[in-house]
Amino acid sequence: MSTLLPSRTQAASPAAFTDRHIGIGPDAQAHMLDVVGYDSVEALVETAVPASIHVQPRASSEIPVAATEAEALAELRELATANRSARPMIGLGYYDTLTPSVISRNVLENPSWYTAYTPYQPEISQGRLEALINFQTMVTDLTGLATANASMLDESTAVVEGMLVARRASKAKTDVFLVDVDALPQTKALLHHRAAAVGIRIVETAFEGELPEAFGAFVQYPGATGRIWDFSAVADAVHAHGGLVVAAADLLALTLLRSPGALGADVAVGTTQRFGVPLGFGGPHAGYMAVRAGLERQLPGRLVGVSQDAVGAPAYRLSLQTREQHIRREKATSNICTAQVLLAVMAAMYAVYHGPDGLRAIATRVAQKADALASALRSSELNLASDAFFDTVRVHVPGRAQDVVDRARDRGYQLLWVDDATVGVSVDETTTDADLLAVLEAFGLASEDLPAGEALRGIDDALHRDDEYLTHPVFHAHRSETAMMRYLKSLADRDYALDRGMIPLGSCTMKLNAATEMAAVSWPEFSRVHPFAPEADVRGYLEMIEQLERWLAEVTGYDAVSLQPNAGSQGELAGLLAIRGYHLANGDAERTVCLIPSSAHGTNAASAILAGMKVVVVACDEAGNVDLGDLRAKIAQHAAELSALMITYPSTHGVYEHDVLEITQAVHDAGGQVYVDGANLNALLGFARFGDLGGDVSHLNLHKTFAIPHGGGGPGVGPVAAKAHLAPFLPSHPFSQRAEHAGGVFDGGPVSAAPHGSAGILPISWAYVRMMGAEGLRQATAAAVLSANYIAARLREHYPVLYAGEGGLVAHECILDLRPLKEQTGVTVDDVAKRLIDYGFHAPTMSFPVAGTLMVEPTESEDLVELDRFVDAMIAIKHEALAVAAGEWPADDNPLVNAPHTAETVVVGEWEHPYSRETAVYPVRSLVRGKYWPPVRRIDQAYGDRNLVCSCPPPEAFA
Amino acid sequence: MSTLLPSRTQAASPAAFTDRHIGIGPDAQAHMLDVVGYDSVEALVETAVPASIHVQPRASSEIPVAATEAEALAELRELATANRSARPMIGLGYYDTLTPSVISRNVLENPSWYTAYTPYQPEISQGRLEALINFQTMVTDLTGLATANASMLDESTAVVEGMLVARRASKAKTDVFLVDVDALPQTKALLHHRAAAVGIRIVETAFEGELPEAFGAFVQYPGATGRIWDFSAVADAVHAHGGLVVAAADLLALTLLRSPGALGADVAVGTTQRFGVPLGFGGPHAGYMAVRAGLERQLPGRLVGVSQDAVGAPAYRLSLQTREQHIRREKATSNICTAQVLLAVMAAMYAVYHGPDGLRAIATRVAQKADALASALRSSELNLASDAFFDTVRVHVPGRAQDVVDRARDRGYQLLWVDDATVGVSVDETTTDADLLAVLEAFGLASEDLPAGEALRGIDDALHRDDEYLTHPVFHAHRSETAMMRYLKSLADRDYALDRGMIPLGSCTMKLNAATEMAAVSWPEFSRVHPFAPEADVRGYLEMIEQLERWLAEVTGYDAVSLQPNAGSQGELAGLLAIRGYHLANGDAERTVCLIPSSAHGTNAASAILAGMKVVVVACDEAGNVDLGDLRAKIAQHAAELSALMITYPSTHGVYEHDVLEITQAVHDAGGQVYVDGANLNALLGFARFGDLGGDVSHLNLHKTFAIPHGGGGPGVGPVAAKAHLAPFLPSHPFSQRAEHAGGVFDGGPVSAAPHGSAGILPISWAYVRMMGAEGLRQATAAAVLSANYIAARLREHYPVLYAGEGGLVAHECILDLRPLKEQTGVTVDDVAKRLIDYGFHAPTMSFPVAGTLMVEPTESEDLVELDRFVDAMIAIKHEALAVAAGEWPADDNPLVNAPHTAETVVVGEWEHPYSRETAVYPVRSLVRGKYWPPVRRIDQAYGDRNLVCSCPPPEAFA
Repeated sequence: MSTLLPSRTQAASPAAFTDRHIGIGPDAQAHMLDVVGYDSVEALVETAVPASIHVQPRASSEIPVAATEAEALAELRELATANRSARPMIGLGYYDTLTPSVISRNVLENPSWYTAYTPYQPEISQGRLEALINFQTMVTDLTGLATANASMLDESTAVVEGMLVARRASKAKTDVFLVDVDALPQTKALLHHRAAAVGIRIVETAFEGELPEAFGAFVQYPGATGRIWDFSAVADAVHAHGGLVVAAADLLALTLLRSPGALGADVAVGTTQRFGVPLGFGGPHAGYMAVRAGLERQLPGRLVGVSQDAVGAPAYRLSLQTREQHIRREKATSNICTAQVLLAVMAAMYAVYHGPDGLRAIATRVAQKADALASALRSSELNLASDAFFDTVRVHVPGRAQDVVDRARDRGYQLLWVDDATVGVSVDETTTDADLLAVLEAFGLASEDLPAGEALRGIDDALHRDDEYLTHPVFHAHRSETAMMRYLKSLADRDYALDRGMIPLGSCTMKLNAATEMAAVSWPEFSRVHPFAPEADVRGYLEMIEQLERWLAEVTGYDAVSLQPNAGSQGELAGLLAIRGYHLANGDAERTVCLIPSSAHGTNAASAILAGMKVVVVACDEAGNVDLGDLRAKIAQHAAELSALMITYPSTHGVYEHDVLEITQAVHDAGGQVYVDGANLNALLGFARFGDLGGDVSHLNLHKTFAIPHGGGGPGVGPVAAKAHLAPFLPSHPFSQRAEHAGGVFDGGPVSAAPHGSAGILPISWAYVRMMGAEGLRQATAAAVLSANYIAARLREHYPVLYAGEGGLVAHECILDLRPLKEQTGVTVDDVAKRLIDYGFHAPTMSFPVAGTLMVEPTESEDLVELDRFVDAMIAIKHEALAVAAGEWPADDNPLVNAPHTAETVVVGEWEHPYSRETAVYPVRSLVRGKYWPPVRRIDQAYGDRNLVCSCPPPEAFA
Repeated sequence: MSTLLPSRTQAASPAAFTDRHIGIGPDAQAHMLDVVGYDSVEALVETAVPASIHVQPRASSEIPVAATEAEALAELRELATANRSARPMIGLGYYDTLTPSVISRNVLENPSWYTAYTPYQPEISQGRLEALINFQTMVTDLTGLATANASMLDESTAVVEGMLVARRASKAKTDVFLVDVDALPQTKALLHHRAAAVGIRIVETAFEGELPEAFGAFVQYPGATGRIWDFSAVADAVHAHGGLVVAAADLLALTLLRSPGALGADVAVGTTQRFGVPLGFGGPHAGYMAVRAGLERQLPGRLVGVSQDAVGAPAYRLSLQTREQHIRREKATSNICTAQVLLAVMAAMYAVYHGPDGLRAIATRVAQKADALASALRSSELNLASDAFFDTVRVHVPGRAQDVVDRARDRGYQLLWVDDATVGVSVDETTTDADLLAVLEAFGLASEDLPAGEALRGIDDALHRDDEYLTHPVFHAHRSETAMMRYLKSLADRDYALDRGMIPLGSCTMKLNAATEMAAVSWPEFSRVHPFAPEADVRGYLEMIEQLERWLAEVTGYDAVSLQPNAGSQGELAGLLAIRGYHLANGDAERTVCLIPSSAHGTNAASAILAGMKVVVVACDEAGNVDLGDLRAKIAQHAAELSALMITYPSTHGVYEHDVLEITQAVHDAGGQVYVDGANLNALLGFARFGDLGGDVSHLNLHKTFAIPHGGGGPGVGPVAAKAHLAPFLPSHPFSQRAEHAGGVFDGGPVSAAPHGSAGILPISWAYVRMMGAEGLRQATAAAVLSANYIAARLREHYPVLYAGEGGLVAHECILDLRPLKEQTGVTVDDVAKRLIDYGFHAPTMSFPVAGTLMVEPTESEDLVELDRFVDAMIAIKHEALAVAAGEWPADDNPLVNAPHTAETVVVGEWEHPYSRETAVYPVRSLVRGKYWPPVRRIDQAYGDRNLVCSCPPPEAFA
């Protein structure tokens, strides 16, 4: 292990992807070690990582020797080919769609969009925030409700969140939630699983006759069978009991149908997948949620709003963040962090590109074709389950269902087998007349022509939509491809993403998202696959998934992995639900206490609440480590009730705690389970394994450690990994193509709408592991740790580094304490973060886990030039702050408090500041050659919350 | 034909690509017609286009009804699948290569790179100019010569150009040019064809014994057989006679071999294809040419140099433009206009990414593998043609060659059949040991292991390279993918491309390059195909090519089309060579006079010279039309010698000449042929056809009319189309997979290295025609004409519009006369062009065809918002000029003369101008929301020519 980091001599071989992924070459490594004070990376990492948990590289491994980029692509091509191309007409919330090429190329395949971070620094995120407010406007317009959030993880989890909104907002004193019998089956499964954990009673109903009292009711519109009905009377009845109505609505259908808001829904949820977002074997797609006026503050997830900047110009930002789980912690009502930003952007741009007329035309064509199919079936004496439908028909074929489905499959079509007597067929925008004729053949009806179709033929006039929607100019201005391309470019130009420079976000691990890793995501063999397609049609996917599961199990020291959770928070929840299931199965129903260190990320507590647990906080010492004394006391206090301990390793303070084995032992001794949060796995991979630390279950973040891009705030993938005893309680799914994941081995119930979650982006992590190999993963960890320690070493004399471990070393991130600076100079952490924008950087994590600090995680992908550029900027900012303290600049008028500076600031009007324009925007000379210009000044957060505007402002606002 | 332009009601259907391609919707159309003063587009176009040449839409057409984007992609997938995937080991100048994904994604698939125009406005082209100077540095370093140009069309045409350089620069008084018998066969074919036209005698030689006197000699290094030898003695001998040595050298081999410069070559040429540029069935790739000191001014093509801007900062621009064909016209020595910029950028970035160590490692691996293969063959008693080779071996298999080739093909490998007794095998960077074992099997040698290979085993030490290359920091700074991605982004950020706004270049037709059109270019079934692959492996390509040929023939009114010419200039040359061949075949050897109107683009004359013709200029009247009287006089004067007339239609003045039928008739009556230049076909498609105008032959520009992007200055594709009587003289190619193009019907000899030229980008034009349909093409023409007339109508009162035709109408472009403005205000056309940058525009064509004017071609893809933004900018600039005239601003210090303004200008230092910073950079308020910042001030063109620097300047230059 003499050369832990790759040498450029190896790099000279075209084979080594590792050398492209890791930013540090041998010269840089030597210099950095020198600064940090170690002779070798080996010595550094061995000092940093406690010897007690250190694992040596394995002699044999599930992970094959690193492939070159070309080899990995060739293997992916083979896997792709093993998926059988078929046209999916299964429906159930998933439809084939035509992604406009201008959107694929300029959003999905453009690093300016996919490598961006969550828009927590709104001044440098105006492009994607505008895209998201387009999304929100689209959803509110189509649903007929007041306020929509910036996306949900998928439709089924959005329904669960809708149920939770209803419970919070309802005045009804009951635990009953009514669920439409005609809901999507996967949604029902999720509702049952999630409701059980939080004490809600689900009552399925056809909404006929008298309804029981309930805090809410869920209606599927159109239903899973395709049926459309007017639920306004049900809404009245539910409201009369003080309950709320949650409706899952198909956005494309809503372009023709009366909106859920108009029918009395309080909450509308659904998916925007069919707005140009590829199926991807189930995801990622953007779910949505909209609520009526008065429920805004109940919305889970992220909400984009309009505020104003320091000079009163309109500016977008995330609104009402105080609702969010990481702030409310154990009072949280939802654990959702990640949104589906990249996919929400695509769906919004699909609406922008087509406009209301275009969407209506697409919907009309779909409905006409569905009607033509229905007419042909009816005229051949086949009965349909309903005559009122939009795109889906259920056909009665007693005893012949399997035969019809098989005949369709022979012709290249996937239909839905409902039961022995029933087949479902769903039409989408890709469906052609030839497709319908082939489907008719599968039903045994040979024909050369289709009858004329009439959209919504069987639908009552009252359900036909007659109000306007998408009237904002943005949905009318970009109809040519040229205009659309430029709009996308102009938005991307406003944002800062990894293609401009470092995004050193603590515990978010903004590493390289390599182009080779991204390539297969766009291949139709992966992108146009329905999540409920038959096993024989998806063998390439299943093989890839199984390989990735094995690799992840090995590197974490666990026995079983489920890739179903489509966000870290959902992985967490799945892990805790597994613990809950385990205790219940052992008859330990009283074990519901979840110990969480005070330093934990708020989401831990929120997930515990949603798993039906009680949170008990464990103290931390001043070094940020779990206070062993307090831990033992809390364990003793809650002995019989102890369910689990959740810890993050290395800690959220960026330190390898030496007591971790003692901690996990203490929990096990008391009959508890240990949950290790995988957020910081990038500090450990190849050097230690959660399973070996005493972890029973963990979630991983493929969008952190395993190279899936952040997409501007999603998608994420949060697999859950566990020891064998918890495997039976890991996520299952009724539609899983793998028997062991449909209850055979894994039997915990679903946490995502699709059996394999966001399967469409798993090729990214697969390629990452395949091209790094076990040794490359280990090298990446070492480089990440070296880089963090290099930054700590260089900055320590300027900013105290909190929470160092052995030898003064940090793990893969370091916390810079800015409180002394504030005391000395009055300059705040906010000022420093915004001033970093002027220097051409995305700020590190602000005030987490400790207020008044910056947490810096450089990752292994940055090179020494960029690390030094950052360090130099931080030092220069320190000097600027000292100048303020020295009175050179007033406290209320200096480059820090006024940061960030737009171009307009230094161009328009008189310059009345005590520092120069050059100091404002070119504090470092090299910026003249390449400058990122923020589009707005510092944004007033409070103004936006006081004046909540969450849909597109009129163009005059920007005049 | 009531709705000539598409309506947005149609656009509402997702089917209509036409509505995405054409920027003008029905409301805009109505408004524009109102401004232009016509009731309908029909009336407008019927007035503009002379009735005598007007064709009505055809009842039946070779062009199928327009496909949707999805349908076109599906058809392309079928065509792709019809190409058989095989690993090409044919060599002969074409090698499979691994394009780094970071380069594919961020250059080849990024509109910021591929939609850029030729860098004639250097202030807004600094990114690609830097990339090109990297290319030039790479070529000079590896070839060991002083100066390289910014690319050639391909290796074989580069050799021809090298021969012409030698003839011009040589002191030898002879027409003899010596050609290496071991040259690539396609290069030999080109040399013979092109030499014949200009009176050069080719003598093939093995360079043994006494050499005849010659003005130059051409050496292939390594040879076609793979053989490497020291040609320095030959160089001495050629030099002794006053001749020059032209060497074609393989750049990858040069990383290990002594450079051609060191061996005495005066000129080095070749291809950079194997530096990461996909094979693409023959192109496009960047050829190269480098020359020794003293020959710089002899270089054909474009040459990037370093100059300085208005404040002395270093800035890149095109150097020595006075050498170029469009300036030298009938004195031109080369007709090359288009470079291969996009491909040169890719090749340069491949070198930047790998660096010298990486390239050397790749070359070493290739050579080791070739040696391993050779050793295995030799140890089985098979003889090789040479023991001194880099990557290619020729194997002696008497009577078995076809059998070996067939067996290889069965195993998925393409080898080279040389003759009954000889098979060639070429190794490239993608070759694996498994590939070599399979090849050995094809030779009948079963083995499980390969012998150890030694790079350049048989090569004399004196030929091993020992000097340094690629020492500039740029070849060492971007080794991680993150660094590379950011470098590419930072360069793209400096440039203005179609993704920012309109590029209204007269006769360059910068229309939309749709993402769907571009998609298939990246598919491996199209990109990894060798140009000399067997017919059975390329049937998809051949079918696509045949379809496209038929479509192009139909829309132009010709009988035969060759897609071989890989630039418009080469199409022109091929057309003139066809005329020459026709006259020769008729015994009319004396017909060598080519009549060219004075308004013609200079390239016309240059091509005529290279086709061995004498140029006679015909006068134009003040309206820019051919002077019929002068034409008749010149015809009479040169009656017996009359070969051809070259005209452009509509004329380069943007006018439909009414006399065109008279003109062509007069030429035909005198026994001449009519060449119609296709540069302005976008004004005609669907309304008139060159063939119907009396044209005998034309070239088209697929990169103008048929949506291939300009790529920052190439690639181009310039098909030649002709009437049946010229078909036998259209380009043929010895390696064409189609018998009729290998002399069967077409028998004119090759004009490109590859039989189908730049076949790899033909899917773009194929998709364009397929998705537009005949009616869509016609609509595009109408929209282009309406847009040009709208601009003319709105600007006429501010700038006189030159050369209007019937009803005051222009064709698809209009010439704005700025001479009165200059007279009135002193503001020059240059000032206006540079000031347009401050307004966020790329300038129109400057001073062509008339000095002191701007020629504006908006194309059909711009929408009304962008057209108005341009018109408003031009009017605002007029007012600024008037303010100068009024004395409000001094003549030597005003926003026009100081344009463009960089951000640095308004930030750094005192502001001492009589206008505000805001006026400088935000002359229009909307720019505050989205501003393109030029990276440099106005560039001093003369300084750069006086101080010629054509390779990367040291980083300190930018400090």
